[in-house]
Amino acid sequence: MTMNRNWVLDSYPEGAARAENFRLVENPVPEPGPGQILIRTRWLSMDPYMRGRISPAKNYTAGVHPGETMHGGGVGEVVASNHPGWQAGDLVESMNLGWQEYAVIAPDQGGTAAANRVLADAPPQAALSWLGMPGLTAYIGLFEIGRPKPGDTVVVSAASGAVGQIAGQIAKLMGARVVAVASSDDKLDYCRSIGFDAGVNYRTAPDLTAAIADACPEGVDFFFDNTGGPIHDAVLANLANFARVAIVGRIAVIDKPASEDIGLRSSARLVVTRATVQGLVVFDWWHRRNEAFARLLKWHRQGHLQFREDILDGIESAPEAFLRMMSGRNHGKQLVRL
Amino acid sequence: MTMNRNWVLDSYPEGAARAENFRLVENPVPEPGPGQILIRTRWLSMDPYMRGRISPAKNYTAGVHPGETMHGGGVGEVVASNHPGWQAGDLVESMNLGWQEYAVIAPDQGGTAAANRVLADAPPQAALSWLGMPGLTAYIGLFEIGRPKPGDTVVVSAASGAVGQIAGQIAKLMGARVVAVASSDDKLDYCRSIGFDAGVNYRTAPDLTAAIADACPEGVDFFFDNTGGPIHDAVLANLANFARVAIVGRIAVIDKPASEDIGLRSSARLVVTRATVQGLVVFDWWHRRNEAFARLLKWHRQGHLQFREDILDGIESAPEAFLRMMSGRNHGKQLVRL
Repeated sequence: MTMNRNWVLDSYPEGAARAENFRLVENPVPEPGPGQILIRTRWLSMDPYMRGRISPAKNYTAGVHPGETMHGGGVGEVVASNHPGWQAGDLVESMNLGWQEYAVIAPDQGGTAAANRVLADAPPQAALSWLGMPGLTAYIGLFEIGRPKPGDTVVVSAASGAVGQIAGQIAKLMGARVVAVASSDDKLDYCRSIGFDAGVNYRTAPDLTAAIADACPEGVDFFFDNTGGPIHDAVLANLANFARVAIVGRIAVIDKPASEDIGLRSSARLVVTRATVQGLVVFDWWHRRNEAFARLLKWHRQGHLQFREDILDGIESAPEAFLRMMSGRNHGKQLVRL
Repeated sequence: MTMNRNWVLDSYPEGAARAENFRLVENPVPEPGPGQILIRTRWLSMDPYMRGRISPAKNYTAGVHPGETMHGGGVGEVVASNHPGWQAGDLVESMNLGWQEYAVIAPDQGGTAAANRVLADAPPQAALSWLGMPGLTAYIGLFEIGRPKPGDTVVVSAASGAVGQIAGQIAKLMGARVVAVASSDDKLDYCRSIGFDAGVNYRTAPDLTAAIADACPEGVDFFFDNTGGPIHDAVLANLANFARVAIVGRIAVIDKPASEDIGLRSSARLVVTRATVQGLVVFDWWHRRNEAFARLLKWHRQGHLQFREDILDGIESAPEAFLRMMSGRNHGKQLVRL
């Protein structure tokens, strides 16, 4: 009997997640029921939203309870199918795999994120990054919220991360001047190598607000905010008139309880600049995937879109990969290769 | 020789403005030069934006320096004219009168706010409230930013104030359920009398976030924010999915230096709800005055639009009126009648 190894949530983290919050267990590989398919996981994606799933607080999706297999998306190969649309050997991208070597999913249940074909035009793991959820997030943030005009200044936080590096390159394609905010000079070097015009290391800048001001002498026209927290405050203090801000991620504050989540109030700056701030949840824009992916592929073919991955191997490294990504030690999109 | 009494800024306030920051002086009434008109002030308007004008900090308009006459808008009567478009006896609304009994202004300078006809269809002081800047602010906030649909829940802070009472009534006309936030039960009673569905007294609520939740069981679809500060935080914690927030005023935090201006970070809630936040400066929308005022007049005629004023008499009461309005002791639009 083939065994399946899967990570279950052992306990809700208090503050930052720790390896002890997860437990690796072994079970027989499940059998697919009617309408279901059995998948062997090839790639696991590590994303900040996962931290929201392992909290008892209300979020926009249901969370993982202690004892349950950790939620997560990935790419796998169909090994057995009771669904007419899928057959053994097909590559599938799914938000519903979980941190495990084998998963049974129902392609017709769980909405558009349940089971997607992996486009053959790119490496399969691109379905987890530039040709998947992060790519669509960047695309919508730029074209629906930021709408920078040529010459506008765009700031991207977590700029070398999964979403940030795509957002920066799209902003460049739109003719903007793009400034990266990241946690190391090495990450900023990478950002410059893919076209970012300037960079701010938020860990070493003695005065982050002043550093943003120096990097953006004409103010910030669009802020693609992947982090929240002190970076958010520093960029908001530098908004240009009629600026836009897309609140996309909040990795800098996601570990903190709501009562500790304090920072500068932005309302004064928002009035003075007439800025617009908007929350972005990519699932609201899932119907725009074809449009986004067609353009992302085209830019990739034209050499405008590069992408950096940070890969750990083996199911046993899932918590390590997650903690690596949450603490910003990753360089580029964090993946686990099985 | 007729004398003109005017209030000059004596010193920049530190924190809340005090009466000692202003000084009443007497000068001869000035003569209008070429293209200028001499106005005798009849009504002075007291508005929170004035606090921003008496700060050395950068704002969206130039400030008042110590020794200069205090900025302010009002309604007056033309007593002498060297401008072909105006003659003695005309009623004029101008942002450029200042806190004085007589003012010389150049109707062709200072943009659209310099000199406006007072519509004959309403009492002249309505040009300072529901048929003027506050009316336009409310109109744009509802129709351009909030866009509530029938049945949506709208929360208005400073709900009995100059902008709030109009915003609430327009929201009712749009079919929304409207909740007032104000500083006294008396103000809330007034809000209910003009159609607000519920009210929260932010000074007596033991837990403001819970009080907003009680008053808005389905969450807040649109927040017309006139105050910023703790009310802002409490309402943001109760936003419904796809909510909108118009940041219109910040009277609750305008006295505080930027470094003290702290509160709950809203980015988590903005992502979860996909809310949109936008700064509103009414002068960006000045070209929409005719459209707004035509509708405001119609609603007034139809009995849908009431308006409460808080009137002090005499130029000597200008600082008192200003401080009264800044501290929320006014009931309705604060005016000075000369």
